[in-house]
Amino acid sequence: MLKQRSIGISHLDYSLPKASYSLSQLKQSGKITSNQKLLKDFGFERCFISEQHNFISVALKEIGTSILKSVNLPQAEIGNLFLYSGLSRDAAQSSDLSMFAYSVTKLHHELNLSPVANPIKLTEQGCGGTLSMVDMAARLLSSSDSQAALCLAADVLPPQSSREIMYNLISDGAGGLLVQKDSPKNKVISFYQETKSYYWDTQNHEEELLATYFPMAERVIKVALEMANLSLEDVIWFVPHNVSQRSWKILSELLGVSDKKIWHQNISRLGHTISCDHIINLKDMEQSGELKSGDILVLFTFGFGANWTCLILEH
Amino acid sequence: MLKQRSIGISHLDYSLPKASYSLSQLKQSGKITSNQKLLKDFGFERCFISEQHNFISVALKEIGTSILKSVNLPQAEIGNLFLYSGLSRDAAQSSDLSMFAYSVTKLHHELNLSPVANPIKLTEQGCGGTLSMVDMAARLLSSSDSQAALCLAADVLPPQSSREIMYNLISDGAGGLLVQKDSPKNKVISFYQETKSYYWDTQNHEEELLATYFPMAERVIKVALEMANLSLEDVIWFVPHNVSQRSWKILSELLGVSDKKIWHQNISRLGHTISCDHIINLKDMEQSGELKSGDILVLFTFGFGANWTCLILEH
Repeated sequence: MLKQRSIGISHLDYSLPKASYSLSQLKQSGKITSNQKLLKDFGFERCFISEQHNFISVALKEIGTSILKSVNLPQAEIGNLFLYSGLSRDAAQSSDLSMFAYSVTKLHHELNLSPVANPIKLTEQGCGGTLSMVDMAARLLSSSDSQAALCLAADVLPPQSSREIMYNLISDGAGGLLVQKDSPKNKVISFYQETKSYYWDTQNHEEELLATYFPMAERVIKVALEMANLSLEDVIWFVPHNVSQRSWKILSELLGVSDKKIWHQNISRLGHTISCDHIINLKDMEQSGELKSGDILVLFTFGFGANWTCLILEH
Repeated sequence: MLKQRSIGISHLDYSLPKASYSLSQLKQSGKITSNQKLLKDFGFERCFISEQHNFISVALKEIGTSILKSVNLPQAEIGNLFLYSGLSRDAAQSSDLSMFAYSVTKLHHELNLSPVANPIKLTEQGCGGTLSMVDMAARLLSSSDSQAALCLAADVLPPQSSREIMYNLISDGAGGLLVQKDSPKNKVISFYQETKSYYWDTQNHEEELLATYFPMAERVIKVALEMANLSLEDVIWFVPHNVSQRSWKILSELLGVSDKKIWHQNISRLGHTISCDHIINLKDMEQSGELKSGDILVLFTFGFGANWTCLILEH
């Protein structure tokens, strides 16, 4: 538990690629392996695919700029720039100085951040990395004189990849958020994660992982609520990772909560982005006007690794 | 400044590849471009080169195991596993589930860490990343119930690389340390970093960077000392990054401190490892018996990006 409970997510923004494709288009181009009907029954309809080689860098520069413009804070008050990616595909393979030309420092420069904003890239926590980044940013702020940390995240599957991973439809996407002291909304209440690293080599444990997913998800959500002295009845919304609606139905039944509490509009619209689902969903939930001040939000995700992660916010 | 000043580095370990090469061997095999005499005048003699493709994973498993064995702490008290690398060469290029087979979760599994030890990889801060990792681990502990964070770091240059970067000789290496509450030594006193991200694209700013290096180094060290209410006279040892002895001579003159305070034994023995110099030097300084309890240590480094980083410890 954080001592300063007023640290929260004050600003959010995201970007999706221009082009999106229907299940039938994806089937025709060989980008899904399951049959269309199954994926439709699971709640998926379309996904967004980046066709620009520099989608991530362009999108993150725009997102960072837009967040910094909307926040009324001197640049020097931002103490950290985090960039999370579940897929570290931009790593240098060269042996000259270009191997040190880092994407996170390029963003630091483009966003004109202060020299004291420590830029570092986080990776290797699958779809759970963004929630861990928020928790880390909040904890670091609680022992710092800085007022805020800028957190960016983006993932694009390699070109020609299948867009289906373990029966989930995958979109490319980029997002950002500002973790800020005295945030008027989205205050970080608790964070809990369990890593079952026995499953680190996902492809050799696919079946076992599916069998473990639900009991672990239930447990991690319940522990995060307990840590915050909250119960399931206190939760107004579950902000999902956009995996299949079917899996959320099973999980809501396990938890004994109405599946009306799961905000699943974006599952059909875009499916699962590796690292940006919660940024996209929370932004869209805010825009929709459905959130009221004080609402308890449960952000849950599972990331290969295998990490079950839950962040509780008070809107 | 951390509120809890008793958080520090309680355990250290490192590993170098078996094979090391003299300047004349390196010149013969085309692995240095400057002439031998220049590099020798700069203080370099040998470097270690990994010939094992899995050097990093084998070394980090051994280092992590050895640290955990020597610390008398239940596994569940370790709340974070960080892995830092300045060169992210192990990124997945595939489009199947193997892209999620992460090195940091593999280590989490091999070290039998508790499910609550949050494993995440840090990158893109050049040679400054390890000191940032220590600062982050210490700050995260200060707002956590956990007792310790395990921090690992390793870098290996791509095969066939030149071993010379901007007149410095580069070794491959791996290291680890435990950041612990109530550490009997190496307490974190202050941390200060400035990032001049204008230089993010190092290869196009080499000359300007060299011109900026010394004034920025002086400034960052002085600010870190000021933050700790210390003066240069209070410093017993400078724990260097193992760049050329010549550059440390210039810096010590700028600071007005005797170059006898720079512990530079390892510059000739192994030169500069991207991320492990301070781990290696601090371990060797402890072994040498030269450190006394209460000694103020200044750990300084520069990392491409460009980041000037200073961590002050009380031994």
